[in-house]
Amino acid sequence: MTEAVANSTRTCDASLTRAFGVLGKRWNGMILSVLSDGPASFSEVRRAVGGITDSVLSDRLTELAGLELVRRSVSEGPPVSVHYELTDGGRALLPVLDQLGAWAHTHLEHSA
Amino acid sequence: MTEAVANSTRTCDASLTRAFGVLGKRWNGMILSVLSDGPASFSEVRRAVGGITDSVLSDRLTELAGLELVRRSVSEGPPVSVHYELTDGGRALLPVLDQLGAWAHTHLEHSA
Repeated sequence: MTEAVANSTRTCDASLTRAFGVLGKRWNGMILSVLSDGPASFSEVRRAVGGITDSVLSDRLTELAGLELVRRSVSEGPPVSVHYELTDGGRALLPVLDQLGAWAHTHLEHSA
Repeated sequence: MTEAVANSTRTCDASLTRAFGVLGKRWNGMILSVLSDGPASFSEVRRAVGGITDSVLSDRLTELAGLELVRRSVSEGPPVSVHYELTDGGRALLPVLDQLGAWAHTHLEHSA
């Protein structure tokens, strides 16, 4: 409303831009949240997230692994099993996700 | 890795699902972040967010206003001016965005 505000140079914080480059992409936040309970198989993640296709989930897990937020681990069998789990970096996001959930509970109650 | 984990029922927290319904949509988080500095005009928001088209920004602001996170206010002129600002609900997200930025600064430093 004020001149000072109107004239200020606004820039979007670089770190936040990076955060939304990851979390502002459908499913990524929910995948990380689902893995907060511990390691899970591909099909467990798919079931918990709900509504995601195999190919999109596969892309997202590859992307999150590339960002070192998720780790893919293979247990020698038999049977061989593959699990996905959070790295330290992924786990560090969990307190923020808790706060985000609390905010949504209070302030997004009436949305679809 | 354990049976207990493998067999647990995982569900994505409903509040967090709702949060990502809003923030997991490209630009929304950045628009809210830009408005944290105070009320801004349409073109100020567009410049600060960067890379967003008029029509997408218009859609996003309408959506965020519908969720009562952003308020559109018209100052009688002349000249008439329109500003967008955070509601209490939108402002309540700011501490969470700060934490998100701090997390990204530490854990997403090497991503593009």
